[in-house]
Amino acid sequence: MTKINAMWQQYPGLAPELTATLTLMEQNIKTHDPKITTAILEMIHAGGKLLRPAYCLLFSKFHTADRQKMIALAAAIETLHTATLIHDDIVDDSALRRNQGTIQARFGKDTAVYAGDYLFVVCFKLLAHYTSGLRSIQINSRNMEKILNGEIRQMKMRYQLDMSLDDYLLQIKGKTAQLFGAACFIGAYESGSSQAFAQQSQQIGLDIGIAFQIVDDILDYAQSSTVLGKPVLQDVRQGVYSAPLVFALQHATPELIQLLKKGPQLTDTDCEHIRQLVIANRGVAQAKQLAAQYTKKALTGIQRLPINAAQQELYQLTQQLLDRQY
Amino acid sequence: MTKINAMWQQYPGLAPELTATLTLMEQNIKTHDPKITTAILEMIHAGGKLLRPAYCLLFSKFHTADRQKMIALAAAIETLHTATLIHDDIVDDSALRRNQGTIQARFGKDTAVYAGDYLFVVCFKLLAHYTSGLRSIQINSRNMEKILNGEIRQMKMRYQLDMSLDDYLLQIKGKTAQLFGAACFIGAYESGSSQAFAQQSQQIGLDIGIAFQIVDDILDYAQSSTVLGKPVLQDVRQGVYSAPLVFALQHATPELIQLLKKGPQLTDTDCEHIRQLVIANRGVAQAKQLAAQYTKKALTGIQRLPINAAQQELYQLTQQLLDRQY
Repeated sequence: MTKINAMWQQYPGLAPELTATLTLMEQNIKTHDPKITTAILEMIHAGGKLLRPAYCLLFSKFHTADRQKMIALAAAIETLHTATLIHDDIVDDSALRRNQGTIQARFGKDTAVYAGDYLFVVCFKLLAHYTSGLRSIQINSRNMEKILNGEIRQMKMRYQLDMSLDDYLLQIKGKTAQLFGAACFIGAYESGSSQAFAQQSQQIGLDIGIAFQIVDDILDYAQSSTVLGKPVLQDVRQGVYSAPLVFALQHATPELIQLLKKGPQLTDTDCEHIRQLVIANRGVAQAKQLAAQYTKKALTGIQRLPINAAQQELYQLTQQLLDRQY
Repeated sequence: MTKINAMWQQYPGLAPELTATLTLMEQNIKTHDPKITTAILEMIHAGGKLLRPAYCLLFSKFHTADRQKMIALAAAIETLHTATLIHDDIVDDSALRRNQGTIQARFGKDTAVYAGDYLFVVCFKLLAHYTSGLRSIQINSRNMEKILNGEIRQMKMRYQLDMSLDDYLLQIKGKTAQLFGAACFIGAYESGSSQAFAQQSQQIGLDIGIAFQIVDDILDYAQSSTVLGKPVLQDVRQGVYSAPLVFALQHATPELIQLLKKGPQLTDTDCEHIRQLVIANRGVAQAKQLAAQYTKKALTGIQRLPINAAQQELYQLTQQLLDRQY
């Protein structure tokens, strides 16, 4: 039974299309192993927010688009996102995602590798059948290349205590913002907008994505693993340093640096200690300022769009998303 | 320095185009981590046979095609093949491939996951830029779905002592023959052939792929790890049973079954023992008959094609390929 996140009740124009997006994804996921099919479907149903398809659909409402086509493209984007999550969980050896065991943790890395690969293929299948031409596939494959390079960049920067804010921003542009930008671009472009409008939409999506990832990274420092659905500061143990830590390191105590040098050997107590030191060193406070800057940039961009119901929902959603939890 | 396998010296019409295929692959592989880029390039240079691009190029020579376009499509196909090899080596925990360490063994599974994902993207980027329309992308994504489902089917059938010959054939159709079929189809179709000619080409490719995989599986029973470039019968230890073993099990001694029940705990001595039992039970002999059937079918198909230089090279290559080593 297809059920989307309760937050979408506030968006009556969008909710039925997001339900249709999820249903279409379900219909397209049919592997020859019921165990793998079920694992993927359970992951999809575990309450992913469907933000990327939501932005794709909203940006398609400034022109008169074939709704079925737009729903299929939104499904392709969320399918790609799911594929990257499954593979990220292999790379990070994550145990939990969306409050349930990751596919690797439950079924092993073999299933997780192929489940992710399979979803990449489903994404391209949906794109190939519903786009109006090769142009969107070209843009999408370029975007995917940037996303992969973002992941690769993050891997390369692991455990780098001298990581700069620019390094961090480049990383999250690749691994998160790029797909938000692509969702907005595809939504606009495939609904028949001008190239200029599609690029304007993409820029707004990039800013939303950057702000979204900073907020996500801040939440790692604010929340318990029970609330968040995944272990706290596991990323730091893996050598992935995000905005609060990068800021804190700019005026860090030797204590913090000493702790971080333990690398993969960090204990849960160490991580809690790091969390407190980062807050004490104003890392979280400065990251909040940075998130606010990108949020403001995104909201200003949305205010410049033609005023209609979609524009209002875009504004509301973006504000709600980036104000969450703090 | 781009260097293709010495076997192509016998195919003067093909050799320069295969060199160009390899060069184009190199030019398109540029990740943000020189370590990963180098790892992928080293794998590509370690002597992959380039069979799939060779068939793609040969089947494009029955019509007047833009050679640069055909080379790019051949590169896309080999890139996809390389991606699946990298991910297969993660799933199988393989230590060696083409006489050198696998990417997972040398750089860890994180690098291997992203390196494979990156090559999937490069494949689609090449396809999106060089095909004549969405149709080839549609066919390609359907083919990729079948390939993934072949891998998934193989994973599901692991350690199944009652595996039938039909199960085996379905598996290798998915994991190997499908890509040979796609290479031939794309070669023909994108060079401007009729739909019927492209489908005829695809069928020949499927038969070549099936015969090729059976021969490959037979070679596991005939060769030392030094000659083959990978440990012998590692697949059996992983629970992947191929034609010789499937045939041997049809009239098996309790001794063979007893050994196989050790599953992942099989020692090198056990594997050598299994090898001897399979040969003694006529498993290899029967597998050779099966390979000969599919080889004959493929060669008959090629004989029915219009006679030109490409047709003669197709015949020679297919015969050489399927006659190798025994």
